[in-house]
Amino acid sequence: MGYTEKDWLAINTIRVLAADATAKSNSGHPGAPMGMAPVAHVLFSKFMKFNPKNPKWLNRDRFVLSNGHGCMLQYALLHLFGYALSMDDIKAFRSIDSITPGHPEAHDTPGIEVTTGPLGQGISNAVGLAMAQAHTSATFNKENFNLVDNYTFCFLGDGCLQEGVASEASSLAGHLQLGNLIAIYDDNHISIDGDTNVSFTEDVQKRYEAYGWQVLVVGDGDNNLDAIEDAIRKAKEETSKPSIIKLKTTIGFGSTQQGTHGVHGSPLKADDIRQLKQKFGFNPEESFAVPQDVYDAYHKVASEGAAAEEEWNKLFAEYAKKYKSEHDDLVRRQTGELPQGWEKALPTYTPADSAVASRKLSETVLSKLADVIPELVGGSADLTGSNLTRWKTAVDFQPPSTGLGDYSGRYIRYGVREHGMGAIMNGLAAYGTIIPYGGTFLNFVSYAAGAIRLSALSQIRNIWVATHDSIGLGEDGPTHQPIETLAHFRALPNCMVWRPADGNETSAAYYVALTSKHTPSIMALSRQNLPQLEGSTIERAIKGGYVLSEVEGAQITLVSTGSEVCIAVDAAKELKEKHNIKARIVSIPCFEVFDAQSKDYRLSVLPDGIPSLSIEVMSTMGWERYTHEQFGLNRFGASGAYKDVYEKFEFTPAGISKRAVQTIDFWKDVPNVRSPINRAFQQLI
Amino acid sequence: MGYTEKDWLAINTIRVLAADATAKSNSGHPGAPMGMAPVAHVLFSKFMKFNPKNPKWLNRDRFVLSNGHGCMLQYALLHLFGYALSMDDIKAFRSIDSITPGHPEAHDTPGIEVTTGPLGQGISNAVGLAMAQAHTSATFNKENFNLVDNYTFCFLGDGCLQEGVASEASSLAGHLQLGNLIAIYDDNHISIDGDTNVSFTEDVQKRYEAYGWQVLVVGDGDNNLDAIEDAIRKAKEETSKPSIIKLKTTIGFGSTQQGTHGVHGSPLKADDIRQLKQKFGFNPEESFAVPQDVYDAYHKVASEGAAAEEEWNKLFAEYAKKYKSEHDDLVRRQTGELPQGWEKALPTYTPADSAVASRKLSETVLSKLADVIPELVGGSADLTGSNLTRWKTAVDFQPPSTGLGDYSGRYIRYGVREHGMGAIMNGLAAYGTIIPYGGTFLNFVSYAAGAIRLSALSQIRNIWVATHDSIGLGEDGPTHQPIETLAHFRALPNCMVWRPADGNETSAAYYVALTSKHTPSIMALSRQNLPQLEGSTIERAIKGGYVLSEVEGAQITLVSTGSEVCIAVDAAKELKEKHNIKARIVSIPCFEVFDAQSKDYRLSVLPDGIPSLSIEVMSTMGWERYTHEQFGLNRFGASGAYKDVYEKFEFTPAGISKRAVQTIDFWKDVPNVRSPINRAFQQLI
Repeated sequence: MGYTEKDWLAINTIRVLAADATAKSNSGHPGAPMGMAPVAHVLFSKFMKFNPKNPKWLNRDRFVLSNGHGCMLQYALLHLFGYALSMDDIKAFRSIDSITPGHPEAHDTPGIEVTTGPLGQGISNAVGLAMAQAHTSATFNKENFNLVDNYTFCFLGDGCLQEGVASEASSLAGHLQLGNLIAIYDDNHISIDGDTNVSFTEDVQKRYEAYGWQVLVVGDGDNNLDAIEDAIRKAKEETSKPSIIKLKTTIGFGSTQQGTHGVHGSPLKADDIRQLKQKFGFNPEESFAVPQDVYDAYHKVASEGAAAEEEWNKLFAEYAKKYKSEHDDLVRRQTGELPQGWEKALPTYTPADSAVASRKLSETVLSKLADVIPELVGGSADLTGSNLTRWKTAVDFQPPSTGLGDYSGRYIRYGVREHGMGAIMNGLAAYGTIIPYGGTFLNFVSYAAGAIRLSALSQIRNIWVATHDSIGLGEDGPTHQPIETLAHFRALPNCMVWRPADGNETSAAYYVALTSKHTPSIMALSRQNLPQLEGSTIERAIKGGYVLSEVEGAQITLVSTGSEVCIAVDAAKELKEKHNIKARIVSIPCFEVFDAQSKDYRLSVLPDGIPSLSIEVMSTMGWERYTHEQFGLNRFGASGAYKDVYEKFEFTPAGISKRAVQTIDFWKDVPNVRSPINRAFQQLI
Repeated sequence: MGYTEKDWLAINTIRVLAADATAKSNSGHPGAPMGMAPVAHVLFSKFMKFNPKNPKWLNRDRFVLSNGHGCMLQYALLHLFGYALSMDDIKAFRSIDSITPGHPEAHDTPGIEVTTGPLGQGISNAVGLAMAQAHTSATFNKENFNLVDNYTFCFLGDGCLQEGVASEASSLAGHLQLGNLIAIYDDNHISIDGDTNVSFTEDVQKRYEAYGWQVLVVGDGDNNLDAIEDAIRKAKEETSKPSIIKLKTTIGFGSTQQGTHGVHGSPLKADDIRQLKQKFGFNPEESFAVPQDVYDAYHKVASEGAAAEEEWNKLFAEYAKKYKSEHDDLVRRQTGELPQGWEKALPTYTPADSAVASRKLSETVLSKLADVIPELVGGSADLTGSNLTRWKTAVDFQPPSTGLGDYSGRYIRYGVREHGMGAIMNGLAAYGTIIPYGGTFLNFVSYAAGAIRLSALSQIRNIWVATHDSIGLGEDGPTHQPIETLAHFRALPNCMVWRPADGNETSAAYYVALTSKHTPSIMALSRQNLPQLEGSTIERAIKGGYVLSEVEGAQITLVSTGSEVCIAVDAAKELKEKHNIKARIVSIPCFEVFDAQSKDYRLSVLPDGIPSLSIEVMSTMGWERYTHEQFGLNRFGASGAYKDVYEKFEFTPAGISKRAVQTIDFWKDVPNVRSPINRAFQQLI
């Protein structure tokens, strides 16, 4: 309350900066920044708790711009409040190697919490951030030590509200009663196709009430700063529900094109910027001008934030004295390092151990790690009993009032919401105190492709427990049997796809996934039992690919992954017995990790001189990079008992042997067969 | 009304059949069929208009089982009503090569409209089917000729309601006021993780009201057949809104485990089946027994359906007399054949024509085809001005009351709902009178991966207009620049991914997409301008790959797609001028189509004897199948002007030349370099 001209000067500075930056880059979205400048001003100067000098302070309020195309709003705020984002960075908006790219990227820009732009992701990340806050406070806060009590604020637009991923996450947020989550909906009635009336006429208010949210409405988000402040205050006061504030704004406020989609995704014309600056009392001859009063006012807010962190640091030092182990745990978690010696908990196996499905082996790993890695927080998209993602003593992450668990619980019931789960995991990880994992069938990981792409791009560590990984799931049939899925995610940069063949490889997969601080992992796990292999060890498997069985004078290398490795082993026996052919066997549980090994090592695994044949019951795409010939499944699967399905498609020792013989025959006239590891030039990275 | 013991006998026959079939296959989901048998009985015997002898009758009511895991319900109904699905087929449930797979597959089983199982898809397909009905009736019905007036009925469960794709489609269905759509929600409070209370506590009723649906509630779906009938009648009476009936049922009704997740996804135990049969008056010693009374009653319903079709055929014959061209058009559409001579409308180009972005070339094709292919019905996920999917004179598909268009309109405003759009397109195509297309950025086609997989599996013809197909989109940056996307969909069986290099290739892509009746297509189209190439023709490009430029004595083949082909052409010039190297050039706009050509042809394009280098600005995954060396981008892109981005990653004539020289150098010691087209054995298809 008590807003003055100074406030409007700050607001208009943001608007003009957004107009200048998009004009200079000749691209970008001025409309949302200009329309949301008032609410941004009120939120950042009256409510948000943050210290620009330490964008990683644990108890900061989180801000997410779900309508990420409006990022000039966020860049302007970061600059004006004194984050390490200079006016030159603003001027470099949308140019190569700037820290101000076309959409906000968390790994590059200080003060950006999560990478947004793909619509619906940010609000779902915000749900994850709020869940992480609830979990962290329930785990670490003590009497008189209200260590963690931050809020998560999220701006979003019509586009986000139309996306299914946002619906999934919002429904779960309501169920979870996340009172620490406040979303502000830029109800400007404009999207790229024009008026939202052409496709989006649902009652958003009612929908969010149906999800269990508090819904507040501000009728004039362009002018009524008091009403905005009042709504945010009411939202903060409601502690047992997430809140969404429906804020009526005018897109591109101040432009001659305001209120139309003309200002959504194109810079303002020179004339328009000129009149805008004149209208707001700026010098139309100047660009990127910030009145000193605005810097001063915002730096004052920033220094209050710095002081708040100072206070918090004192509290945390007191906490250290009284709760040393909790303190140390919380400090450690934020570094991303795991507890010392955790890896001793990883199970190892010998061939004498019984055959076990790799989904079950994964369950064993999770159960053993649950005790030693307290930040491991996971769940499943309503497939707990199939994914085997829950350790026996786990407590559910639930609002205490439900009687089903509490917020310190580490097991999340995501419901049938794969995409929401993926985006929420990104938010959980971004908070800084949690390593999230989530389960579903491998085939339905594809539903979450949009979120996983952002895990990879924003260098987030999380783990997909993706069971039922092939035609080996059997009876559920082609609708559930992945064919293209591994190729898809293997082609995604900075994403590890693991397909372990047995217990040691499963442990190795978790070892690498958990120690890779900046990379998501997908564990493709079998429904069917797999024997413990002779020759597999954790040490070997963590290289991503290794020689499982070496034979002197081998005539062929059989290369495989997951549930087919044991069939390849049997095929090698058959080749010896029936064809007097010597076959060596290579397991490549993870392309991405194998590719990172030295060329010498890779050539020792896939050497020159003999042809190679890969065996994997799905698309052969990508295998040509490693092997001369490929046995796979470039068609959809079949519904039936899994052994019948394998038989139908000839994934048997006999089927492999036949193709191995054909491979040897085909390559016998080529002198010095060259390993595909040899390349003419390096790929750009 | 007036239900008797006979009705309950039929209902219990369905339940017992579901128990028997899942027990025999030792897998499957008995719970939903047993719980939904009453509503299925009422719907199929009192409301549904269908003729089992002609499952393709145009004006039949459509039935979609969105909770596809409950497919034994649908198989039982199809069998009992007399579709070509025998008791032996029921006994073969979930066994190899049966027409009764683990989830319903439309291309294999008579009476199955759409392939379901992946949750959320079926209800979204149903929205598409209802839209198609609205469009077809608005287009063909005349006074006194109410040719098309069918309803679409859809069963769905909690899982479907939690999926974002269903939220997207449901919101659009409300906007579109689809009074011909009736969904029946199996509110059994059970999902795989147990009670839905663990994750799904939203107010579904209120949410659907917010979407603009009529919501009806039946409190006792286990016993109260009158209430079920009443609700369906009310739903039919509401013609300006879709309806959803919230039906309280007991999952696995009749089992000793009824009402628990124990009956969701596992067969009943032998004891349980015994008591079930006894309870329902069946002989516990018999399996797969159907009382003749049930057959008789259902066959009577079926014969009424046959008579209704007979009547309709008469009406249609009258229609033929009065509206011959409409009649012929409607008949033709249902065959899937295009109007004769349509292909003459495809534009052709010569190198003298100006450089144009392929998204713009696509717009030209669509604009020219709009007149000659009336069944082409398309839209965009709120990117109309960017995807260029709308021809100038198009009318929007909208409820007339909005004043924005009408149901005969052929342009659909999907809103920002990519996954919903994909699933709706599957429904539109399944109706039988429409060829749907939909636009979004290529990067966000991934949001719809779940739907596209089902397009491919169920052999549906539709077209994704996927613009902004690479780092060439420039400033929007890595969040919007596809890297893995082409590899993903190229690995998907029965999916054509086209990346045309110029105007002729764009026309060729549409030619093949539209004439491939059983395959979906993705058109990857550039934002930036592309020159018209010397050597490209429609005839060549429809082979999926061809020699754009042949040179005698060539030392290398440069292979490329889309926007990089013209850079490869310039690279070839540079190679000649600066290195005296002769390079031939190959364009492969579509892997899937190229793979289908004869080996001789493929070898003529990619011959033995010289090395080859592929150039494409995204993941190299899959290119090893065609070329010896690959120049691509196995990392995320960058935000900046598109020429700067291409420069940064060296996709320039110089960058290509450098790698071409390296390729020649690397392969020069290998005698008789073998083309990768040569393989040791054929892939299974």
